Amino acid sequence: MDKATYDLVIIGSGPAGQKGAIAAAKLGKKVAVIDRKGMIGGVSLHTGTIPSKTLREAVMYMTGFRQRAFYGSDYSLKEKVSKEDLSARVRTVLERELEVVRHQFRRNEVTVIQGSACFLDPHTIVAPTDAGDVLLSAEKILIACGTRPARDPMIPFDGQTVIDAGELESLAEIPKDLIVVGAGVIGIEYASMCAALEVRVTIIEQRAEMLDFLDREIVEQLQYHLRDLGVIFRFGEKVLSVEKDSRGSVVATLESGKTVAGAALLYAVGRQSNADLLKLEAAGVPLDKRGRIGVNEHFQTAIPHIYAAGDVIGFPALAATSMEQGRLAACHMFGAHATNSTSPLPYGVYTIPEISMIGKTERQLTEEKIPYEVGIARYEELARGQILGDQTGRLKLLFDPRNLKLLGIHIIGEGATELVHIGQAIMNTGATIEYFRDTVFNYPTLAEAYKVAALNGLNKLRN
Amino acid sequence: MDKATYDLVIIGSGPAGQKGAIAAAKLGKKVAVIDRKGMIGGVSLHTGTIPSKTLREAVMYMTGFRQRAFYGSDYSLKEKVSKEDLSARVRTVLERELEVVRHQFRRNEVTVIQGSACFLDPHTIVAPTDAGDVLLSAEKILIACGTRPARDPMIPFDGQTVIDAGELESLAEIPKDLIVVGAGVIGIEYASMCAALEVRVTIIEQRAEMLDFLDREIVEQLQYHLRDLGVIFRFGEKVLSVEKDSRGSVVATLESGKTVAGAALLYAVGRQSNADLLKLEAAGVPLDKRGRIGVNEHFQTAIPHIYAAGDVIGFPALAATSMEQGRLAACHMFGAHATNSTSPLPYGVYTIPEISMIGKTERQLTEEKIPYEVGIARYEELARGQILGDQTGRLKLLFDPRNLKLLGIHIIGEGATELVHIGQAIMNTGATIEYFRDTVFNYPTLAEAYKVAALNGLNKLRN
Repeated sequence: MDKATYDLVIIGSGPAGQKGAIAAAKLGKKVAVIDRKGMIGGVSLHTGTIPSKTLREAVMYMTGFRQRAFYGSDYSLKEKVSKEDLSARVRTVLERELEVVRHQFRRNEVTVIQGSACFLDPHTIVAPTDAGDVLLSAEKILIACGTRPARDPMIPFDGQTVIDAGELESLAEIPKDLIVVGAGVIGIEYASMCAALEVRVTIIEQRAEMLDFLDREIVEQLQYHLRDLGVIFRFGEKVLSVEKDSRGSVVATLESGKTVAGAALLYAVGRQSNADLLKLEAAGVPLDKRGRIGVNEHFQTAIPHIYAAGDVIGFPALAATSMEQGRLAACHMFGAHATNSTSPLPYGVYTIPEISMIGKTERQLTEEKIPYEVGIARYEELARGQILGDQTGRLKLLFDPRNLKLLGIHIIGEGATELVHIGQAIMNTGATIEYFRDTVFNYPTLAEAYKVAALNGLNKLRN
Repeated sequence: MDKATYDLVIIGSGPAGQKGAIAAAKLGKKVAVIDRKGMIGGVSLHTGTIPSKTLREAVMYMTGFRQRAFYGSDYSLKEKVSKEDLSARVRTVLERELEVVRHQFRRNEVTVIQGSACFLDPHTIVAPTDAGDVLLSAEKILIACGTRPARDPMIPFDGQTVIDAGELESLAEIPKDLIVVGAGVIGIEYASMCAALEVRVTIIEQRAEMLDFLDREIVEQLQYHLRDLGVIFRFGEKVLSVEKDSRGSVVATLESGKTVAGAALLYAVGRQSNADLLKLEAAGVPLDKRGRIGVNEHFQTAIPHIYAAGDVIGFPALAATSMEQGRLAACHMFGAHATNSTSPLPYGVYTIPEISMIGKTERQLTEEKIPYEVGIARYEELARGQILGDQTGRLKLLFDPRNLKLLGIHIIGEGATELVHIGQAIMNTGATIEYFRDTVFNYPTLAEAYKVAALNGLNKLRN
C-alpha cells in the first residue's frame, strides 16, 4: 500500500475542516481531507444546519407565515404543505451547497478522500475507501470529526416515528402531533417549524427553563409565540419510558405520572463526539469523559502537531465558531499570523421567530453586579417592521449607564441573525451607543431599530 | 382670532418634521406641527417611500419572485396579480404607520394642525383648517414642507394613464406595458417592480447612464437583471412629445425619431419644492432658483430662528437623512448637544434586486487618485444565499491597500439596505477590513459576505 505524504491531513469536512483546509492551502500547503462517503460537508451540510435552515425558510414561505399580518392568521399559501414540497427545496440547496464545498476544495487543490479514518501512529492515518485502504502520512493533523446525536438506550428509535435530529428526512409524513424531548436549540428550532406547519407539538424538558444562555425576556417572548402556535411546554419533566401503542402512536410516560401521546417523537437531548471512532489511542490523544478532545488556545491537543476544532472540542459547537477554529488552527500550525479574537461570540437561533444575541444577558449582568440600562425598539414602531408584517419583533440594547458602552444585544424577530452584526461591530470596536443615535440608517430598514433603541435608552438616562 | 404660542412650529409632518417635533418635545418644548388634511406623515407616508416599499414587498411575495430559484422562472404565487391584491396591503401598512406617527405625536404632546401654512411675519403663521383659520406664534420655526413631483407642461397628465410618481394609486389596472420617463431612483424602483409583475417596461433617460452616484459594476448588474425581466432601456434619448392615440395607448415621440407606445406612462423626472406655497416673503426667507431653501450647517435659513430640513433643502433628499436633519435642527435651536456627523451617508435603492452603498465608488476613487483594492463576495458562495435562492447578489468592499481601511461598500441583492450598516459601523469607527476576517458571523447569514469579501481582498494583497 502506497503512502501519500501531506503537510496537513484533516479528519472531517464540516465547517471546521473546510476552513482549515482552505487556510492551509492558501499558505501553499499540501492538504488532504478525509470524510465518509456521502458526508462531504459534514453533518452541518447533510442533516444539520443547512437542511434545517432551508426547511425553516421553506416552511416560512409555504405556510405564508410572514403574510399572516396582512391576510389573517389562517392564511396559508398551500392548502396542505406536504413533506415532498419541503424536501424538494432542501435537496436543491443541499446539492448546490455540496457543489460549493467541492468546488472550493478543487480550486484550492485540496485532496478529498472518501472513507472513515483511523490513526495508525501520531503521523499516520489509514482511510478505508471503496477503492481500498488509503495510507496518509502528515506533518500536521486536524481532527474535525464532529458529533452525532446522543441516543438514550431507553428510547426505541426506529428511524420512522421515533427519531433523532439526524433522521428528520426519514419521517414518511409530516406528523399530526409531535413529541419533542429536549428543549435545546435543535429541539426548539424543529418544534417551532413544526408548529408553524400546524403540527401539535409537546416539548418535554427536564430543566425548569430552556435556552438559558439567552436573555430571559427574549425566551419568554419566544415561549409566548410558540404557545400561540399551540405548542405545549412540559418543563421539569423527565421521560421515564417511550412505547408505541397498538395504533402506531408513540406514548411517552413521564416521571410525574403523566403520559404524552403523539404520531412521532423527536429525541433531541445532547450530542456525542465522533472521536471514539478514530482509534486515537494510536496517536496518544486523550479524550475527556464525554468523548471530547481537549485543546489549548491554539487548538492543539496533548500531542502538539495534532490539532482539533469544531464540535468535537465542545462548547459552543456552532458552525460559525467551528469555521473560525479551523482557520485559526491551520494558521497556527504553519506559523501564519492570525488573531484569535477574545470578543464575545454571536449566537443565532433559527426558531420562528428568529433570535440572536451577543454579549451579556440581564441575568448575567445582575449576577456580576454590573449596572446597566436598557434601550428597547419594537419592530411595530419601525416602518420596515410594518412593511414586512413583523409586529412582534424587538431589539434590546443593554449598556453601561456610566460610559454608554454596549454590554449586550438581544434580538427576536425577522432578520435577527443578520442585524446582530451591526451592534457587534460597535461593541467590538468599543464605540458607545451614541453611535446609533448619530448615525443615519437607510429608511425603511430593521437596522433603524438600533437608533430607536439607543434613543429610548438615552432618554431613560436623561429622565 | 386667537393666537396660540409655541416654542416651535413645524411646517410639514414628514420624516424631518416628525423627528424635529419629537426631539423638541423631549426637550420639554411646546411644539405644533402643521400639515395638510390627510397628509399627516408627509409624502413619504402617503405616496412615496412607504407605499412604494410596501408595494415592492407585496410584489416580491405575490409574484413568488424569491422562489424562482427553486420552482423555476415561470413560478408565480397567483396566476395573475391584481392591483387590488397589491393595494390592500399598501392600505394596511399605510394605516398602521399613520397610527404610529399619530401616536408618537400624542405621546409627546405635539399639537397637530391639519391645514396649509402661510407666513404672516417671521414669527407668525396662519393655517386655514376645516374649523377656520388657526394663528400660531412661535419662537422657532422649522420648515419641512417637502417636495412634489415636477411636471413638464408638455406631458398630458390625466391622472389615469399619464401619471407622475405620486399618482400610481390612481392607475385603474396594472398596465400591460409601461413607459417610464426618467431613470432616477423613483423611476427605476417602479420600473423594476412592474417588470417583476411581467409588465413590459421601456425606460427613457436623457443621460447616457443612470444612477450615477452608484458604483458602475453594481448598476451594470442591475441593468442586466432588469433586461432579463424584459426591460428596454433607451439612454441618451429625449422625449419630444407624448400623445394618446385613438385606442387609448400612450405614445411618446423621441428626439431621435423613435416612437414608444404603452398602456401607461410614468413621468419621474425630478421633484419640485413646496416652499413656493408658504408665502416665505413675509418671513424674509429667500428661495434659490429651483425653489429650495438654503441652510447653514445647523439647518438655519437666512433668518436665524427659522430652520429648514428634509427634501426642501435639496440633496440628498432621503427619508433617513431628513429625519436626522430634523432632529439636529431641533437640538440646535434649543441649545441641546447633538453631533452632526460628517460620516458618509448610506444610500438605499429599493429596486429588484435591492442596492445599497456607502463611501466612494471605484470611479470616484480613480478620479481622486486614491489607490484601492477590491474584495468581492458572491451570494451564491454563501449558504444563506443558497437557502434564500439569491444566486446573483454580491457585496464589494473597496479598501486602501496601504492601511486596509474601508473606502466604499457596494451591495446588490437581498437585504442590501440592512447589510450595509455592518460595514458602515466599521468604516465610521475607523477599523480595518481585518475586523471582518477576525470576527465570527452567525452561520448561515448574508452578513458572512463581509468575511468572504475581506478574505478575498486580503488574499489579493498577498499574491
